[in-house]
Amino acid sequence: MTTDSWINETLYPDWGQRFRVTRELARVRSAFQDIVIFESSSHGRVMLLDGVVQITEGDEFVYQEMLTHVPLLAHGACTRVLIIGAGDGGVLRRVLQHRGVREAVMVEIDGEVIRLAKEFLPAIAGEAWHDPRATVLVGDGIDYVKQAPDDRFDAIIVDSTDPIGIGEVLFTDAFYANAARILAPGGLIVNQCGVPFMQADELRETSARRARFFPHVGAYVAAVPTYVGGFMTLGFAAKQAGLDAVPATTIRARAEAAGILGATQYWTPDIHAGAFHLPPYIARHLPPRS
Amino acid sequence: MTTDSWINETLYPDWGQRFRVTRELARVRSAFQDIVIFESSSHGRVMLLDGVVQITEGDEFVYQEMLTHVPLLAHGACTRVLIIGAGDGGVLRRVLQHRGVREAVMVEIDGEVIRLAKEFLPAIAGEAWHDPRATVLVGDGIDYVKQAPDDRFDAIIVDSTDPIGIGEVLFTDAFYANAARILAPGGLIVNQCGVPFMQADELRETSARRARFFPHVGAYVAAVPTYVGGFMTLGFAAKQAGLDAVPATTIRARAEAAGILGATQYWTPDIHAGAFHLPPYIARHLPPRS
Repeated sequence: MTTDSWINETLYPDWGQRFRVTRELARVRSAFQDIVIFESSSHGRVMLLDGVVQITEGDEFVYQEMLTHVPLLAHGACTRVLIIGAGDGGVLRRVLQHRGVREAVMVEIDGEVIRLAKEFLPAIAGEAWHDPRATVLVGDGIDYVKQAPDDRFDAIIVDSTDPIGIGEVLFTDAFYANAARILAPGGLIVNQCGVPFMQADELRETSARRARFFPHVGAYVAAVPTYVGGFMTLGFAAKQAGLDAVPATTIRARAEAAGILGATQYWTPDIHAGAFHLPPYIARHLPPRS
Repeated sequence: MTTDSWINETLYPDWGQRFRVTRELARVRSAFQDIVIFESSSHGRVMLLDGVVQITEGDEFVYQEMLTHVPLLAHGACTRVLIIGAGDGGVLRRVLQHRGVREAVMVEIDGEVIRLAKEFLPAIAGEAWHDPRATVLVGDGIDYVKQAPDDRFDAIIVDSTDPIGIGEVLFTDAFYANAARILAPGGLIVNQCGVPFMQADELRETSARRARFFPHVGAYVAAVPTYVGGFMTLGFAAKQAGLDAVPATTIRARAEAAGILGATQYWTPDIHAGAFHLPPYIARHLPPRS
């Protein structure tokens, strides 16, 4: 994977990005995956799982803000949030920025990711690990949603790898059925659905699956620098209608009350509202509107 | 630049994208630059100028649609359009899709780019080369705008390389002064301003320069898969106010009249309107609003 001082991402067989490595910080084979963290001059520190870029210090704000603030502010009254994956703690930090959140449960399967993120990427989570509202569990997200009681959460955020390898089970019927069950009325779930220009199947297949368990299924987009290939999509499935069409003025008012307004580098109320307008080349992979 | 069957883009010193090459089609040193065209399994045919990706068959629609339809429909009554650069003919084709356009003048400095695009990328321009409304000149865009009469065009589209090498003169005071002069009252100019996550200086410096010659300066974004690094920005400078805030409903009506509605894969009226809402990490590089 390393040639001289370059690391090539190995996500696709015939196209990829590469980083000049100034220093390798960790290279660990956990019980679940290969974890590599290195320093780059272009993006700061970078974490790869099984050869695929998961997070960089330089651009993590795009993905984390859009994966967190959009569902919480679209819902408008989330107090209990479940995070699956996201071992770097970046989503947890963003969730806890919301004043209304009383409880955030994070379930990450790979304790090594958490340990290495705390050691080498401490700014990503900041003080979130120590927030009294946070519960961080090392365990299987599938088991967790199976055992959680009905109506337990207002929002579920799935920050997984692509639906290959260990992330695959987070895109199954069994997972979505339990997710729907443990969400309170009006609740919603978001999860990353890859970059449609390169991975259209991922959006199409997982959206069709979400549509079996949720009445309102859609997607929104974010331009994440290191999830290369144009827009990535974030899958959106809700128990109530209209969460994907909340006007920017309403979102702004909610963000102000939540303490989010002005605290972001990518997300804004207008970008929130605009992100649900999909380019035709992406929209055609979604199920017909209910 | 070639290792085995891979080509690495050489735009940045410490980060880049790479393509697996299935067949090299052309490798030419013109009077101005190195031109390479190859076939890839991921993106179809790809053209590089001086080692930098200019266009791929797979994703050209994103850039071409946003660079063309946004200024023409924001203006709403363009009949005479000047295109500088864009030797592949893709912008010319999109400009001529607009029913109201009576004349499109294209000035490309490097005749070899046009020749090779016609031979190896014929679908990009399609029949545009033969449209009676088109005038294709091989020449220097700087000289052209110097010699063109006042008020000659309604819109100018600059599809140049980055402001390094031969593209640099298209970002100078002299160029913008003449551009403002040859635009009719109410006219506007757009040009690509790079990917701010990687090249923020480009947006900042060229926007400040445009602001010396145009009263209304801004930018809009597009997520172009192979202009990697998140959103790219398209600089926007107008002689009349408000062209960056035309409501989507108005844009839709204009697009319908122009024959554009339903003919795009990325551009839509909502995406058009939304593209002017910039993430804070990009907005901070623009001059203060006039």
